[in-house]
Amino acid sequence: MTREPADLTEDILKKPVPAPEVEDLEDLALGDDYALNPDYVEMVVDAADRGDSERLGELVSALRSEDVADLMGFLTADYREQVIPHLDPEALAEVLSELETSLREEILEAMHPATLAKALEELDSDDAADLVDDLEDDKRAAVLAAMDETDRAAIETSLAYEDETAGRLMQREVLAAPQFWTVGQAIDHVRTAGDDIPELFFDIYVVDPGYKPVGAVPVSHLLRARREVSLAEIMEEVSEIPVDMDQEEVAYIFDKYHLISAPVVDPGGRLVGQITVDDIVGVIQEEADEDVLALAGVSDAGRDAGVFDVVRSRLPWLVVNLVTEALAVTVIGAFQAEITKLAVLAVLMPIVASLGGNAGTQTLAVAVRALANNELNAANAFRIVGREMFVGLLNGGAVGAVMAVAVWVIFKDATLCLVIALALIINIFVASVAGILAPLTLEKLGRDPAVSSSVFVTFVTDFTGFFSFLGLAALILL
Amino acid sequence: MTREPADLTEDILKKPVPAPEVEDLEDLALGDDYALNPDYVEMVVDAADRGDSERLGELVSALRSEDVADLMGFLTADYREQVIPHLDPEALAEVLSELETSLREEILEAMHPATLAKALEELDSDDAADLVDDLEDDKRAAVLAAMDETDRAAIETSLAYEDETAGRLMQREVLAAPQFWTVGQAIDHVRTAGDDIPELFFDIYVVDPGYKPVGAVPVSHLLRARREVSLAEIMEEVSEIPVDMDQEEVAYIFDKYHLISAPVVDPGGRLVGQITVDDIVGVIQEEADEDVLALAGVSDAGRDAGVFDVVRSRLPWLVVNLVTEALAVTVIGAFQAEITKLAVLAVLMPIVASLGGNAGTQTLAVAVRALANNELNAANAFRIVGREMFVGLLNGGAVGAVMAVAVWVIFKDATLCLVIALALIINIFVASVAGILAPLTLEKLGRDPAVSSSVFVTFVTDFTGFFSFLGLAALILL
Repeated sequence: MTREPADLTEDILKKPVPAPEVEDLEDLALGDDYALNPDYVEMVVDAADRGDSERLGELVSALRSEDVADLMGFLTADYREQVIPHLDPEALAEVLSELETSLREEILEAMHPATLAKALEELDSDDAADLVDDLEDDKRAAVLAAMDETDRAAIETSLAYEDETAGRLMQREVLAAPQFWTVGQAIDHVRTAGDDIPELFFDIYVVDPGYKPVGAVPVSHLLRARREVSLAEIMEEVSEIPVDMDQEEVAYIFDKYHLISAPVVDPGGRLVGQITVDDIVGVIQEEADEDVLALAGVSDAGRDAGVFDVVRSRLPWLVVNLVTEALAVTVIGAFQAEITKLAVLAVLMPIVASLGGNAGTQTLAVAVRALANNELNAANAFRIVGREMFVGLLNGGAVGAVMAVAVWVIFKDATLCLVIALALIINIFVASVAGILAPLTLEKLGRDPAVSSSVFVTFVTDFTGFFSFLGLAALILL
Repeated sequence: MTREPADLTEDILKKPVPAPEVEDLEDLALGDDYALNPDYVEMVVDAADRGDSERLGELVSALRSEDVADLMGFLTADYREQVIPHLDPEALAEVLSELETSLREEILEAMHPATLAKALEELDSDDAADLVDDLEDDKRAAVLAAMDETDRAAIETSLAYEDETAGRLMQREVLAAPQFWTVGQAIDHVRTAGDDIPELFFDIYVVDPGYKPVGAVPVSHLLRARREVSLAEIMEEVSEIPVDMDQEEVAYIFDKYHLISAPVVDPGGRLVGQITVDDIVGVIQEEADEDVLALAGVSDAGRDAGVFDVVRSRLPWLVVNLVTEALAVTVIGAFQAEITKLAVLAVLMPIVASLGGNAGTQTLAVAVRALANNELNAANAFRIVGREMFVGLLNGGAVGAVMAVAVWVIFKDATLCLVIALALIINIFVASVAGILAPLTLEKLGRDPAVSSSVFVTFVTDFTGFFSFLGLAALILL
């Protein structure tokens, strides 16, 4: 059936394109995996480019604060400045606490101390302290001065603890009850306590007269128990976290015992706060990122770091590597005469060095994660080192055999086959030993086993690779 | 004041060495960081060696099940067999669900189906399914047959979902309430529901008549609200997890929105279960471990894998690397004449290749973690690639300059300085580009960006390193 143009026009007039509603924007914003849609970022950039402030406001307010933080990360500084005015103090505070450090610092510096103080009062003490910690000294003083007494005191107490410790992670708001209370008394306390208790909580800590935690009652158990039951009867064992414990150890405890929240105690064993698992999830991500980056010889400059910050985060390690590599190649320098006589040595020697580097990195990566997960310590170190030596010999033998065959096919020289096979066995064996001993030694010395292990292992495998291959060649072949 | 020997003897007689109590053992077992003490493992081994079953029982029963699992990991198979009889079915079930796969399989295979069935009935459906999944087919059938109807059905439903999806992570026990209920009705329901609701829960999901979740009420809010308030009034937005979502994406959502629990829905949007954050903490650890190991070119054989399993997990990557490295060194083969003329080229060329490898690994590690954290996608890929190119040029320039000075000091040859500086700039630039484009491309193709990126980047940097340095030398120097 054909239709007249008039019909079509009529159709179009009848069915106007529906105006986008907030509901629609929410669907547009996030993919099925709850990650921010690249198209949505485009829409924000377009609105900003057109100077369409109303549309920009719509787009921003359709997002949860976590997604606004995400959005910020994908925008350049100019666009970020246009987004910020569309956030009220509470939303801004939440967005700020979700941002990564480099971005957060940039935005904090641009904010007025009074606005910032107002935003901070909306946050839990741990999140607020985190933000204040990022401020420069004079700004920090101004912001704290603009806050009310109680909030300021909470932040100052939190900042007194060292960075990356339990004291910093914890919130001071906590729900505690004496042992002799009944379930009914505890519930009534919660109903009437108002703002003195955390907005969200998962456990009630049972304390003795000295305010030391002796147990915990999950809220869901409180709900199920009869009112006349005493807390002491239904409380469970708690894992106390010392206030000065490193956050990586705190994360280990949460992971191991599947904790949702845990009480934090001062050196006298008194309850001073609590850590909840949602803060720990972030810590685990952070510590894993640190291990990956440390093994690759790079510190994290942050997603939005400028070119020079990125250079600063990488160049020092490259220079360190330049120095160790220069040391390793002095071995080659000592064998120049041999190489001149037989240039094929120069062709094959990188293979020996590279395979050793690989085998060392493999062992190192496994060892670093085993240490991070407390799966490797004095109780099994001896056994694991022994296993690595055995594995090194077997892998070296296998790779050496493959290489010997390849060399035979190409060069038809049995002695050369022998030299490269032996060199590979030696180097892969040494690599396996270095790959396990380096992180174990660093851990024993109280250092981070991920940092600097790989530089050391690479040096050892390059040096050994060149030395074993060229040395054996000089000895057997020439 | 001096004392007679008799006095001392008397003192000793008066104060006998106290017999070790269970309380003492608990303190001995764990360090301040809640990691199992290596000395305690020694004590267990000693008791087992002496055949002192009573002491062994004391030592084992002083531990929480998570610590027994830890202990198992530090023992060899012989000792593990002696520990198991000291665990009752419930404790054994808990220990089993804490163990890593290779160990767990070994212990499961040795257990009688009836004992195992009894142990499994003690666990949540998700944990039980995990264990059953590790059994071999005939054993699995025997164990399921020995379980009661309800538990078997729950496990079979769970196993119908693919491994590493939300369906596998979730527990089917969940607390749901219709929108029109009041707080009081919900609380009364919890009090009277008995075993139909989860043992521990953090949110009550509010569902519509089609059993689709429309909101959630945290238990602590339920406790605070007045009984007559309706759930619809106090419920909060929920993030629904599709039952077939990959666990890595689930972890991302929990991390992003700081969730404690989330409802899982079937393709029709109906509530079928819930995931709690304690399961997610494990997933995050696992995924981070996978990234570290994939970047190092090694799969996880498990802490207690035998030598041959470890070899199997590493040798294939070494062989792949042998092949790519053999390809890369063909470049050197083409320049043998030049090397014979000037052996110092063979000394310096590994430096160019190694520094490129380093720069590439740095970029790669940052990119892989950014992708894992959803911080890198189409919205900023172009900008980040541009930044990497710039960073590569600057780092190349800096390293090139340092190297040129060093070469000048040693060899006093300006052309050689120029050649190595240019080669370093080229290779570090290429390394930076390869380090970002390789993972981006793999991600775009729907592959894991951590796996195989590093082999590719190493090949590119070795090839480019040798080719740029020797090629420039042939062109300019000879």
